[in-house]
Amino acid sequence: MNALQTHGDESALTPLQARRLRIHTVHESVVFLRSDSPVCKAEGLGTQVRVAVRSGAREIMATLYQVEGEALGVDEAGLSESAWNQLAINDGDPVSIRHPQPVDSFSALRRRIFGLRLDDTSLRMVISDIAGGRYADVHIASFLAACTTLPLDLDETRSLTRAMVDTGVRLDWGAPMVLDKHCVGGLPGNRTTPLVVAIVAAHGLVIPKTSSRAITSPAGTADTMETLAPVDLPIERIRQVVEKEGGCIVWGGAMQLSPADDIMIRVQRALDLENDGQMVASVLSKKVAAGASHIVLDIPVGPSAKVRSAAAADHLEQLMKAVASDFGMEMVVHRSDGRQPVGRGIGPALEAHDLLAILEGAPDAPLDLTERACALAGILLEMGGKAAAGEGAALARETLADGRALRKFEAICEAQGGRRVPPVAPLRQTLCAPEAGEIATIDNRRLARLAKLAGAPETACAGVEMHVRLGEKVDKGQPLCTIHSASKGELEYAQAYAEANSDILLLVPF
Amino acid sequence: MNALQTHGDESALTPLQARRLRIHTVHESVVFLRSDSPVCKAEGLGTQVRVAVRSGAREIMATLYQVEGEALGVDEAGLSESAWNQLAINDGDPVSIRHPQPVDSFSALRRRIFGLRLDDTSLRMVISDIAGGRYADVHIASFLAACTTLPLDLDETRSLTRAMVDTGVRLDWGAPMVLDKHCVGGLPGNRTTPLVVAIVAAHGLVIPKTSSRAITSPAGTADTMETLAPVDLPIERIRQVVEKEGGCIVWGGAMQLSPADDIMIRVQRALDLENDGQMVASVLSKKVAAGASHIVLDIPVGPSAKVRSAAAADHLEQLMKAVASDFGMEMVVHRSDGRQPVGRGIGPALEAHDLLAILEGAPDAPLDLTERACALAGILLEMGGKAAAGEGAALARETLADGRALRKFEAICEAQGGRRVPPVAPLRQTLCAPEAGEIATIDNRRLARLAKLAGAPETACAGVEMHVRLGEKVDKGQPLCTIHSASKGELEYAQAYAEANSDILLLVPF
Repeated sequence: MNALQTHGDESALTPLQARRLRIHTVHESVVFLRSDSPVCKAEGLGTQVRVAVRSGAREIMATLYQVEGEALGVDEAGLSESAWNQLAINDGDPVSIRHPQPVDSFSALRRRIFGLRLDDTSLRMVISDIAGGRYADVHIASFLAACTTLPLDLDETRSLTRAMVDTGVRLDWGAPMVLDKHCVGGLPGNRTTPLVVAIVAAHGLVIPKTSSRAITSPAGTADTMETLAPVDLPIERIRQVVEKEGGCIVWGGAMQLSPADDIMIRVQRALDLENDGQMVASVLSKKVAAGASHIVLDIPVGPSAKVRSAAAADHLEQLMKAVASDFGMEMVVHRSDGRQPVGRGIGPALEAHDLLAILEGAPDAPLDLTERACALAGILLEMGGKAAAGEGAALARETLADGRALRKFEAICEAQGGRRVPPVAPLRQTLCAPEAGEIATIDNRRLARLAKLAGAPETACAGVEMHVRLGEKVDKGQPLCTIHSASKGELEYAQAYAEANSDILLLVPF
Repeated sequence: MNALQTHGDESALTPLQARRLRIHTVHESVVFLRSDSPVCKAEGLGTQVRVAVRSGAREIMATLYQVEGEALGVDEAGLSESAWNQLAINDGDPVSIRHPQPVDSFSALRRRIFGLRLDDTSLRMVISDIAGGRYADVHIASFLAACTTLPLDLDETRSLTRAMVDTGVRLDWGAPMVLDKHCVGGLPGNRTTPLVVAIVAAHGLVIPKTSSRAITSPAGTADTMETLAPVDLPIERIRQVVEKEGGCIVWGGAMQLSPADDIMIRVQRALDLENDGQMVASVLSKKVAAGASHIVLDIPVGPSAKVRSAAAADHLEQLMKAVASDFGMEMVVHRSDGRQPVGRGIGPALEAHDLLAILEGAPDAPLDLTERACALAGILLEMGGKAAAGEGAALARETLADGRALRKFEAICEAQGGRRVPPVAPLRQTLCAPEAGEIATIDNRRLARLAKLAGAPETACAGVEMHVRLGEKVDKGQPLCTIHSASKGELEYAQAYAEANSDILLLVPF
């Protein structure tokens, strides 16, 4: 019989030397050990198991891969970039590796997968373990799928939102009214946020807007805005921007507003998956964390948008409003036409060019995007007491027309670090009408896929530029849209996809 | 406007030199490229994307990780062991890397996650893409979760089984009757297979048994049998064994009986997840592939077994029988007591010691395991016409008692490559009763977890040895069970788990 050491006693663990391998694995931390490492033997660690990696006071969870041969020393622990950064160490620093504690919330995860509802406590445990990096991607994927197949109900959505809020920070802007705007997405090119912020802030209202990068779309607001100004600012810098200009348009991901959500979003992206409850918790946890008190929510509805019917919009609206009111937030929902893309550009830089055209009052600026931005800004101007009921949109239009919105937008860009010029794609391919006809339907989902195949959002200049709109009559050979790309490989794949899906823009004879 | 090459034209692709990195990533193939590699730029490949890797006529799907620094040349493609083996190449061979074709079945996967049923064609596409390595682990995890939250129905289970059968090989033994046996599992130590095969084959019947390694349990039959004889045989060797001895007990994983199932099982293991439809498809696709015509199915029922109630057993039995009859297989279902572990050992070698004790007629051989094996062997002896109805179990007992089963077992081991002596763990820790009482319940699930923490099944000698059974009265300080382990780290974690879960064996005062 053996004298056993207690679970947390580190003296028992052989220390290894950290080695930076400069391998990018996105968020899932990876540690590489020699298969003949004494630690693998002593701890009985196989390949692709989850382990706890500790250096000093910091401990992270990582996936272990075993390596053979001389590339790694037998007393070395090779670390991926995410592990390296989270541990904040230097080459040669001692690290210890051991079995992780059993993950308490796995039994709750299991129950949810088997179709049982989770209560507040269980969801809190799940979210805390996800935020703590204790879930591998397969666990997160199974949680997301289970919460889609049996949709999260109102109670679960409330609990999930609360749990996400509690794992993140919570900002306070010292203002009695903090405005915010959100679109549930699904509509390519619907990039109203920079316009709304500029218009609303031009009237002295406070609108500190944090945006995400693309989840399943070819561009997120942060991706588009990044082609116009820096968006990755530390919180102190954001405070300075908002104090000076009343508004900002920044990336929220580095602020740890909702760390569990940031992790889940990466898996959602790999799965191309979103569900109502998850979306409500994701959006509202970030709004609460960002200190918002008044929100306008844009829900585009259309057969190939994220929300496909009035009934689906009703469900989402009810869920959003119920959970928002739990947190004392006032919310106005604006439903919009989701049958086709908005503006002309789909992709970060292409959308930025649309925004600049509108702000600068260019004669060919896309009117549909202008009108949507003014409708949303108008609601916020009314909520903020700057316009009487029903008069907000007109005031927003005026603010655009007289250049106040452009001046405010330029000032915000300067405050965030300086205006940038959006890039232009070096490779293009125009798709033309194979015959004359009328544009009967546009498939948003496959159009987004086309823009992504072209390289968006990773490649800022990539995407799709639209030349036609629903109901438009075109001649044979007339340009329908242009694929923009920065690499030959991507342009090829996008074109092959377009050829195999020639009904993305459905033409009917007239 | 650019002249575009067609999708499949390889002349456009820069060739890279293959480099073996000797990294074990289990089944998910990984390829490492320098982030400044011209291929990453030309193809627009980010980190952690899925890519197609081609060498000569072979092409596989892999996950791409970008690496910085000098560890890898800018024109090299570093490959994990699974990628290396699947491509069957040598260091320096040219490989090309490009965007994969869009995975056609992802829209079906998406529909299933959103709660819609899949038809035969869609499930066939999903299974074909999984077998072809076109799904990352997160996709498989989401499919498994969706098919658990909304359980697969009979039609889906039939389609899934057919699809799995069609992606694998199908063996023919040239015998009119081929017997088989399966247990749905969930009961630690229930290792009847080697006994059943020995008894049945001793009567001249054909029972070519292929078994799996542990999925979520501390030992699979293949893990246990491997401590007694080689189990990883090529199909030609297996044929020789069966021709000579009538039976075999081998690992089925290398035979590609159901390649999609083999891949899914690895993700199921990471998730500790199994569902009825999936289980039926997994079991029956392998039985069809293995050429079975008559099957006895053991379903242990108990509150902490895999099947927890008579109703759950009914559902599983119906599903199994319906799908089995689709493929012309005769099946008898045997329900057994699933309230506690069977035999004394839990873990590969510990279970092997139980088997040897029974075959050798040791006076302390576990009677419960003997009785279970004889019940199942008896049913097969009756199906095979070697015993009249109701007399099979007695014949099985006789075959054990007179040494015929032992001789047949030894002969099978010799034919498979030679008898081995199961290992014994170097480290042990006995857990004793904190007070006097009666064993009221035993939690199979947590007991299995304890054995896995001790190192089973990866470490063959590790596991748990039981000293008591349900209903037994024990004194204070009397041994309840002993943890066996080969590493101090694992013994510690197992003991810590046992201390935190002292009610795994629930004592009530008497």
